Amino acid sequence: MKDQNKNTEIREIRLSELHLPEDLKKLNYYQCRRLAKEMRDIMIRTISHNGGHLASNLGVVELTMALHRVFESPKDKFIWDVGHQCYAHKLLTGRVKQFRTIRTENGISGFPKPSESPHDVCISGHSSNSISIACGMAESMRMNNDSHHAIAIIGDGAMTGGMAFEGLNNGGKKKLKNLIVILNDNNMSISGNVGALSGYLRSIRESERYVRRKQELERNLRNTPKVGEPTIKVLKKTKDSFKRVVMNQATMFEQMGFVYLGPVDGHNLLELEEVLRTAKRYETPVFIHVRTVKGKGYLPAEKNPSQFHGVSKFDVMTGNPEISGDDCYSTQFGMELTKLANEDKRICAITAAMEFGTGLQYFAADHPDRFYDVGIAEQHAVTFAAGLAASGLIPVFAVYSTFLQRAYDQLIHDVAIGGLHVVLAIDRAGIVGEDGETHQGMFDVPMLTCIPGTVIYSPSCYEELNLCMRRAIFEDTGLAAVRYPKGNDKGMHFPKEALNTDYTYLEEDADILLISYGRVYQSIWDAHNTCEKSGYKTSLLKLTRIFPVDEDLVEKALKYKIVIFFEESSGYGGISTIFGSLLSQYGFGGRYVRVSADNFLKHASIPALLEKTDLSAHAVCRYIYAYGTKS
Amino acid sequence: MKDQNKNTEIREIRLSELHLPEDLKKLNYYQCRRLAKEMRDIMIRTISHNGGHLASNLGVVELTMALHRVFESPKDKFIWDVGHQCYAHKLLTGRVKQFRTIRTENGISGFPKPSESPHDVCISGHSSNSISIACGMAESMRMNNDSHHAIAIIGDGAMTGGMAFEGLNNGGKKKLKNLIVILNDNNMSISGNVGALSGYLRSIRESERYVRRKQELERNLRNTPKVGEPTIKVLKKTKDSFKRVVMNQATMFEQMGFVYLGPVDGHNLLELEEVLRTAKRYETPVFIHVRTVKGKGYLPAEKNPSQFHGVSKFDVMTGNPEISGDDCYSTQFGMELTKLANEDKRICAITAAMEFGTGLQYFAADHPDRFYDVGIAEQHAVTFAAGLAASGLIPVFAVYSTFLQRAYDQLIHDVAIGGLHVVLAIDRAGIVGEDGETHQGMFDVPMLTCIPGTVIYSPSCYEELNLCMRRAIFEDTGLAAVRYPKGNDKGMHFPKEALNTDYTYLEEDADILLISYGRVYQSIWDAHNTCEKSGYKTSLLKLTRIFPVDEDLVEKALKYKIVIFFEESSGYGGISTIFGSLLSQYGFGGRYVRVSADNFLKHASIPALLEKTDLSAHAVCRYIYAYGTKS
Repeated sequence: MKDQNKNTEIREIRLSELHLPEDLKKLNYYQCRRLAKEMRDIMIRTISHNGGHLASNLGVVELTMALHRVFESPKDKFIWDVGHQCYAHKLLTGRVKQFRTIRTENGISGFPKPSESPHDVCISGHSSNSISIACGMAESMRMNNDSHHAIAIIGDGAMTGGMAFEGLNNGGKKKLKNLIVILNDNNMSISGNVGALSGYLRSIRESERYVRRKQELERNLRNTPKVGEPTIKVLKKTKDSFKRVVMNQATMFEQMGFVYLGPVDGHNLLELEEVLRTAKRYETPVFIHVRTVKGKGYLPAEKNPSQFHGVSKFDVMTGNPEISGDDCYSTQFGMELTKLANEDKRICAITAAMEFGTGLQYFAADHPDRFYDVGIAEQHAVTFAAGLAASGLIPVFAVYSTFLQRAYDQLIHDVAIGGLHVVLAIDRAGIVGEDGETHQGMFDVPMLTCIPGTVIYSPSCYEELNLCMRRAIFEDTGLAAVRYPKGNDKGMHFPKEALNTDYTYLEEDADILLISYGRVYQSIWDAHNTCEKSGYKTSLLKLTRIFPVDEDLVEKALKYKIVIFFEESSGYGGISTIFGSLLSQYGFGGRYVRVSADNFLKHASIPALLEKTDLSAHAVCRYIYAYGTKS
Repeated sequence: MKDQNKNTEIREIRLSELHLPEDLKKLNYYQCRRLAKEMRDIMIRTISHNGGHLASNLGVVELTMALHRVFESPKDKFIWDVGHQCYAHKLLTGRVKQFRTIRTENGISGFPKPSESPHDVCISGHSSNSISIACGMAESMRMNNDSHHAIAIIGDGAMTGGMAFEGLNNGGKKKLKNLIVILNDNNMSISGNVGALSGYLRSIRESERYVRRKQELERNLRNTPKVGEPTIKVLKKTKDSFKRVVMNQATMFEQMGFVYLGPVDGHNLLELEEVLRTAKRYETPVFIHVRTVKGKGYLPAEKNPSQFHGVSKFDVMTGNPEISGDDCYSTQFGMELTKLANEDKRICAITAAMEFGTGLQYFAADHPDRFYDVGIAEQHAVTFAAGLAASGLIPVFAVYSTFLQRAYDQLIHDVAIGGLHVVLAIDRAGIVGEDGETHQGMFDVPMLTCIPGTVIYSPSCYEELNLCMRRAIFEDTGLAAVRYPKGNDKGMHFPKEALNTDYTYLEEDADILLISYGRVYQSIWDAHNTCEKSGYKTSLLKLTRIFPVDEDLVEKALKYKIVIFFEESSGYGGISTIFGSLLSQYGFGGRYVRVSADNFLKHASIPALLEKTDLSAHAVCRYIYAYGTKS
């Protein structure tokens, strides 16, 4: 490629030598290409070590470069949707040195974070929100006569979320001239993409006519004078002629009020820059359709983009994970549900683009006819489940705790009021670690306790998970949820003979009662054993059906001087608050202590966060020593 | 019109003489037309007396008749979106006699309710969920080889909710052959419609070509033999030819995988029945576009459909409301916000299709440039607000409590994690009365208390509302909510000199402390006065900033023998539970009593429901007598 920028020597440059993002504009295409390779190498090396999102980030290297070369961040606002595709953006905005700390405690986040850099303009860990945020920013620019742009970069998976449609509908109608939406179309979502939209995008992608029309338009625009009144006239004319050309088959996005440009090859920097410069000149909202390859530049990821969507440590040479992810609550759930579905033909399984994450691949293989991947559309997932339930089927929606937040009204309005029997398998409940604030599963319990008629289980090991699933599916009616943590139960050392779906009470001759549920039962059990050795006795109460709270247990607690409840959840509205209130309703005369995670938790390892929230065995011991008396 | 059904005499029939819905199929068009008039008369008369949704119901009389004549309810499932357009359906399914009890205690509901009739197949008080429910039911029909249909009837307003798009995307992709979506397009939503979609629908409506194509198609299909293999072949051919015809301008709905039929005149029974019969024959999902006139057949409502969307009692002759709705919290809020926006240019107001309901019409008139009606799209509303806030503006989202549930993840993820300053004006908080379970505002408090950093106010009168709004807007940072009830503050008789935005403590020489907030403060104040006369003394604590709970107040409460908290909200996760837990954390030795509305509340008047939930002054007195001692 010839040098297109006369001021810059053709020489090997390295990311660390540049002042970014400013210097990026000075580079020629040859240098850019080298830089792209360096960025990919850094990402692969770092993520193989720290874990994180890989395939999507490899796919947007050139797009990110083009954005930073054509626009001026942070005056122009880049809004990444989902935010996990921001690694190249982090590398290009002065975070090369910190990149090796990504997703580690006190290191940089794996998602955009305004507190980390002015180039990260918003939090974005959940999908489909970018167009709405960009609308807000574009509207503010309009008010301030600011000619910069708010640019939403949204994956085709994220486009399946209804909220993206709400954003398009409003942005298009408002004719927000500072708004650009870039569809990063890798035809993948997280696993294979789903929904009619996906087929539709494919049909556009494959239509040569679109590419030709786009090229025509770009030629027209390239010949347009750069500023002033004539520009506007010519632009208008161009737009009209463009409209005429495409009128015979307007895309859905044009029907929504956007100028549609594309599809463009997302790995061709020249082409990308041209289309971005074109978009910049319009006085209307623009929709750019970019085709990318998920995992681009790393063969194992190109071959298995789903597997490399979110990864743990892996071997760079082979792409093989260092630790097998097979043994975890998700897998256990997936295999058990598949088994139950053999017994009962009414059982259906639903996922919102998380077939592998939730362990439903086994179900999908054995019962393809009763398996539904609805795309990133949690609202539809819950209400679709309500429709199945109303027809006599037994739907199980497997969903990460944090994403269940996206279907709150549907749980209340479409499921609970009608008393429909829908089962929620809430994965990644509680602390999830490295993904940070946006992904911690801290709200499912408070969300659900206020919905009348809901039953919630929190098993502490695989055996209990199986028992709880069976009870939730076959015995409960109405909304029933089983919540379980990220990871496996291999660290669980408590005696399993008393496993059941109600509670386990270990009564000692003690003044202190420790209460917990789920994974944290391990902490109070370990602390109980440790402290016993130094003469501190404690009774233990482990809840399995955590809601509704069994009031017999409140009565059992009344005799203790000190009751301490350790809860891996936001405590307001959680079980610890409800239990505390019941204690005073029953006339408890002792002292109640509530330990829960009532603030947003930054990224760090799960053990580190359990320690930080006083939910580790070590922390529980401190409480025992502080409140207890030696016998 | 000539008699089209030879078995039926042309005679005047009345709704009450028929066995419905079966007999409907035996009527001729003349009789149907008379019946439509009778139904409209009944609706106008009843709603003028009971209040309810009028304009939308007048608009779907013929559509509802056509549906019941062509399909076989309840084997075919009609899913009304929003459910308040179900009055004609209720009249046609055996509820003529009960209709005068609509929206009254122990009477029939103003929304579809499965417990009321097998013809009401699901709860539907919130919008945009119908396609997802229909997908579930259609999928179940597919599994059971059932050839009936699940039919979503969705307003153009409800179509602006992203969830409807999620439903289309999934229904289209799954090629659900039992699925029919009927767009009831009155170009209105609740007030004037918004969004790019609205303009798009208008363009289709106005396109004569569509009507012609539809007619062509219908002709083809009418000539198709009724059953067996030949049908399928011809249908396939017809479909292909139809596709060719429209290929040059496929609608968005076709792009989503539906066969598009329409637009059809929604007041022409003949035309409606033809298109429904056509839809029935397809082996793919069908989308029918029906044009209706909101308020059809009642001049005042045709002229002012927004005003007659949801109404209180009115005079049938003039259409004038019996009670002016001007004096209410909504109006007070709207006027105050307009004033504040004069002082500060950063203040913006957002509504999700509720300009008039939330009192924002004053703001819209004075500050059109900072007023945003985003359609029925609460998710977008909140995240758009986040985008404005991130740009330094101060967005106020005015929303009914029950609809805020539709943007839960957006509050957590897009607003709270980033610490953005977004103000929620939560209208219809607490009991709303006649709209019933789906509309009671019982979950906003529990929803918000678990979101870190949230501040919530609950004023007890207009003066406090103004003070709280000012504080939420100008003093708080992060997510701040002011919640206020439906209705006005005219019944408020407590002394207003102590009004503020924190709390009011009335300390007496008493053993009992009564706590409450918002509207229910009136009840405890009245009960306090009543019981004092019979020698029962009580102290009172009224919270205004209800969350976070001021722990000084917990300390004040410790000295009482009995503390009773009356809360007009779901109590789990509500303030009464949090306060109760704090009491036991502080070592309270007395007895705590919690009174809140922890179950779904059916429709009845607000006073009746306050009585039922023990939140009336009368009920509070009972608690005082039960727990107190005479001094």
